[in-house]
Amino acid sequence: MATPLPTHRAQIELILSAWGFSAAATAATADVLAWADLHGIDSHGISMLTMYDDWRRAGRLDPRAEPRILRQSPVSALVDGGGGLGHWPGRFAMQTAIDKAAGIGMAAVAVRNSAHYGACGYYALMAAERGLIGITTTTTSGARVAPTRAAEAKLGTDPWCFAAPGAPGQPFLLDMATTTVAFGKIRNKANEGISCPPGWLLDAQGQPSTDANDAVSRGGFLTPLGGTPEGSSHKGYGLAAMVNILAACLSGATVTPHPAHGKSPGGMGIGHFFLALDPGLFREAADFRAEVAAFCDLLRAATPADPAQPVLVAGDPERAVAACRGRAGITIAAGLGEKLRAIAAASGAPWLLD
Amino acid sequence: MATPLPTHRAQIELILSAWGFSAAATAATADVLAWADLHGIDSHGISMLTMYDDWRRAGRLDPRAEPRILRQSPVSALVDGGGGLGHWPGRFAMQTAIDKAAGIGMAAVAVRNSAHYGACGYYALMAAERGLIGITTTTTSGARVAPTRAAEAKLGTDPWCFAAPGAPGQPFLLDMATTTVAFGKIRNKANEGISCPPGWLLDAQGQPSTDANDAVSRGGFLTPLGGTPEGSSHKGYGLAAMVNILAACLSGATVTPHPAHGKSPGGMGIGHFFLALDPGLFREAADFRAEVAAFCDLLRAATPADPAQPVLVAGDPERAVAACRGRAGITIAAGLGEKLRAIAAASGAPWLLD
Repeated sequence: MATPLPTHRAQIELILSAWGFSAAATAATADVLAWADLHGIDSHGISMLTMYDDWRRAGRLDPRAEPRILRQSPVSALVDGGGGLGHWPGRFAMQTAIDKAAGIGMAAVAVRNSAHYGACGYYALMAAERGLIGITTTTTSGARVAPTRAAEAKLGTDPWCFAAPGAPGQPFLLDMATTTVAFGKIRNKANEGISCPPGWLLDAQGQPSTDANDAVSRGGFLTPLGGTPEGSSHKGYGLAAMVNILAACLSGATVTPHPAHGKSPGGMGIGHFFLALDPGLFREAADFRAEVAAFCDLLRAATPADPAQPVLVAGDPERAVAACRGRAGITIAAGLGEKLRAIAAASGAPWLLD
Repeated sequence: MATPLPTHRAQIELILSAWGFSAAATAATADVLAWADLHGIDSHGISMLTMYDDWRRAGRLDPRAEPRILRQSPVSALVDGGGGLGHWPGRFAMQTAIDKAAGIGMAAVAVRNSAHYGACGYYALMAAERGLIGITTTTTSGARVAPTRAAEAKLGTDPWCFAAPGAPGQPFLLDMATTTVAFGKIRNKANEGISCPPGWLLDAQGQPSTDANDAVSRGGFLTPLGGTPEGSSHKGYGLAAMVNILAACLSGATVTPHPAHGKSPGGMGIGHFFLALDPGLFREAADFRAEVAAFCDLLRAATPADPAQPVLVAGDPERAVAACRGRAGITIAAGLGEKLRAIAAASGAPWLLD
């Protein structure tokens, strides 16, 4: 059954509250997860509660954590996430970058001692909605990606996100893992028993494979964007390394290939990076937005190879889903619904999603 | 015959001087082109003089152009390139960003009314050599790349470059076109009469092809990084769009798909973007550099799929070539040498490369 967004969000809040998360952490986390579900980014929405439940039970997420500024300047801040989930520190950090950029024109904020912060797009969009360019990136908790030439996982999906204000309600919003595809896409192929397209994965020896099971259960790896050395996977690999430098080396979080990454007893050791930049530093802000809007329209106007599949711009697909789900509500798959119902019951949270 | 770097650079200077370029433009351009040749980026070195000669003869490059700051703040500047080559404006802009970042911690500079500025890596490295993170990106003069789903070129190779200081003399340096491969790689396959790997190009109908001639002479297109929709070419496409937003929409240069792009009578209409960020805003700068160095070493230590091909980090291959060419000198292919000799003769420049 489809649930209206406010009810969906309330369910997330009820579970987080029942877990003992502070009111501020609960509100921020529910906002970010519900935003992801509304926009069709189901991998980063309410489904994450199943992972968060595992992590908090393992003592790896402090429900009372509060983000705290350790160091700042007119153009920067370093934030300690306090060892809880990343959504509140993430929103706090991007808001700090936005507030500083509103004064001086640009600012960067690094966060350490954090955890999963959900969909990157939420944070970059905060900047775009204030008329700023927004950038965010984060490390991830597990190494699943083999660098080009390697037969060993050293990197995560290491996403990169860039947003710019354009036509009203239509910001440019690029939110991409630096891998060829997400692990979930490969797992789905394994579940269906069908092959993956070339370039998606490597087997345990670091050789290209199209058998999803090689990555799912036989010790293989995800590939960096580009897929193979001939497809320029060194570029996706380079972007993932850039992500680690920005999100971990700047903040003091551990980089993904570090032996201690994800092994600190009280937290997940994730780092994030946020940047806000005011186009008004360079030209009239309205002219910039008009230029971005016109640019996006020029791209959308490209002759499509298949007339049934028009050319889109980053952010378009998610906005289309959000418009639909805003009207029709959000539906959860039956299997996920059962898991979440059990989680709610175990924590004493009311169940709203019937 | 291999030529020592100083002689190679002097040859570039002699030709630019003979063309009437100002002393400052000549020095900056020669530095950037010679740096590219030293580092094995032959596509962006002295070979570019053949293109620059075409453009200046067509009245599209003003040899007396000077970069000029139109607008600035403590964290930013907007620079007019003056309608000449991009190397002097590029170096001037990155130096401006570095100088401002040295004071306040970070700065961004946008450049418009510029042209080809050579290898991006030169500029990002300027920041890394001063202990800063450096970012640069630029629009390009021609549309050769079809957005995902399109059968029409709307974007250029739109490179992205990121540098960070690490071990002494070993900065992380990612300099990548946002396409799967450069056009030159496809042209080489056509010249050799062999097929391209899947994902490199599309035919004129926007369908994947492995026939290099489809892109070289039959109206086809380069692909964004990812190669195909299944390989996530929307990510490379999104990065190329991001590049246009940063390099053109911020500076006021025309975006690549704009009908007027590259058609203004007195210049090339290229835009660049530069950013410098001081890691010392967040932590001790020496700790950051040590962290980047350790991270790069962890990546290099990854088990290789083929023991004969160790895992590299962005910047390693170019440094290896530079070490070799620094000792042995720089060799120009015979065909290019003949073209350059004719260009030198036509302009009255002495010829040093015999």
